[in-house]
Amino acid sequence: MSAFPVREPFATRWNDNDQYGHLNNTVYYAAMDTAVNAFMMREGGLQPGGDGPIALCAASSCEFHASAAFPELLEVGIGIERLGTTSVIWALGILRPGEDQPIATGRFVHVFVDAATRRPTPVTPSVRSAIESRLLI
Amino acid sequence: MSAFPVREPFATRWNDNDQYGHLNNTVYYAAMDTAVNAFMMREGGLQPGGDGPIALCAASSCEFHASAAFPELLEVGIGIERLGTTSVIWALGILRPGEDQPIATGRFVHVFVDAATRRPTPVTPSVRSAIESRLLI
Amino acid sequence: MSAFPVREPFATRWNDNDQYGHLNNTVYYAAMDTAVNAFMMREGGLQPGGDGPIALCAASSCEFHASAAFPELLEVGIGIERLGTTSVIWALGILRPGEDQPIATGRFVHVFVDAATRRPTPVTPSVRSAIESRLLI
Amino acid sequence: MSAFPVREPFATRWNDNDQYGHLNNTVYYAAMDTAVNAFMMREGGLQPGGDGPIALCAASSCEFHASAAFPELLEVGIGIERLGTTSVIWALGILRPGEDQPIATGRFVHVFVDAATRRPTPVTPSVRSAIESRLLI
Repeated sequence: MSAFPVREPFATRWNDNDQYGHLNNTVYYAAMDTAVNAFMMREGGLQPGGDGPIALCAASSCEFHASAAFPELLEVGIGIERLGTTSVIWALGILRPGEDQPIATGRFVHVFVDAATRRPTPVTPSVRSAIESRLLI
Repeated sequence: MSAFPVREPFATRWNDNDQYGHLNNTVYYAAMDTAVNAFMMREGGLQPGGDGPIALCAASSCEFHASAAFPELLEVGIGIERLGTTSVIWALGILRPGEDQPIATGRFVHVFVDAATRRPTPVTPSVRSAIESRLLI
Repeated sequence: MSAFPVREPFATRWNDNDQYGHLNNTVYYAAMDTAVNAFMMREGGLQPGGDGPIALCAASSCEFHASAAFPELLEVGIGIERLGTTSVIWALGILRPGEDQPIATGRFVHVFVDAATRRPTPVTPSVRSAIESRLLI
Repeated sequence: MSAFPVREPFATRWNDNDQYGHLNNTVYYAAMDTAVNAFMMREGGLQPGGDGPIALCAASSCEFHASAAFPELLEVGIGIERLGTTSVIWALGILRPGEDQPIATGRFVHVFVDAATRRPTPVTPSVRSAIESRLLI
């Protein structure tokens, strides 16, 4: 079974290429952040602008195995390393379409917090359910 | 006939939304820059990392009519205001898929220059041909 | 008298340079946006996260006269083209420290709106006062 | 002795704040990337646009301890975890001016490669010397 049950598209942009002519390393983090939030919003009903809990990044990391460049279309593979009470550790990969070997592998630790107090709060039931049904299979 | 004979997809990202919860104005310029370069590379054989002419932005502008936000998928409509000897003025629109009314309208003036000397040089024949066949119809 | 009574520092970043080895055009807009908001927050008491009016960009433009690149430190010169009832038109320049000739000249049209309804509302008295005392001299 | 013998300024920008009203996590990576490259260029003679070796990011990580927001001025503390033959592991911190406790701690693994072939090559003598004299003290 694939390490990434869900793959989200990630389109590169002209200004993602830095002066070395390839995607700057920060772009991979933007890709992972975008994919995970898109998944939580679409599948898990996360509403970033509402009063409900929000997910903040407590830690992240990435290993870069191969480079890519605009105008390539990439994908972010989404998996789960750990689903906790108030946190989620996402296991992520940046992939070329049709390939299984990531060009970069990363990790995001999201902590759910109350939007107003920014204190930890349980992962919302709908995000938990989306993770269980789509990613922990 | 549409003002935009070609429409390029533009996917928004989590960090495109600024603290007002909508796409920051700079994102519209990244969208236009990306669309025009994608068009020139794919249809006109522009090679940004090569020895041939490159297209530099000499002026740009944008009027914002309505806001948009991640995770919306947008499109950039591409048209031509003027095709000159060494320059191209692009007439651009940011649109929602399926809509004809842009949420933003913009303009990019590209000047073709020699990659090494950065002196003006004629629009390459293949970019000119792509513009004539795809956009000036 | 200078066209820019106030100059705000703008530090470039590694990933501001695009693959042509100079600041991507979108960076100039980020610079202008940053400078104007910093001025309004520091001098005019604007509170972007509060309940008061916020300033949205309705139009912007820039002409690029010379290029710049990381790690240069730049400045944004701030002037006023028009101070209206609910809008401000900023006349802006990107400058090298100690120089009077901008490497780029731009323009931002800000419309003040209610944070909740996003309907136009008068420029706040404190922002108006800051503009009058610091920029319309 | 401080973990960070050198501190580079890092100015935040309006569009660094994401819709949660604080610096997006990708901005911390842009800060670390900028600081390390500024140090290597200024102190170690690195020339990103030349024919000499360049430093590519092979891995990076960050832990976020406290949030920050535009218009704060921040600093990046630079230290060394390991100086190898062809690689450097930077130990980095994002700090508020005058404070010793980082709001975020990170790590960048840079591998030096030949600009043309992108094959590993020794850390340049001048970068090595800058690291030894300024950071390994």
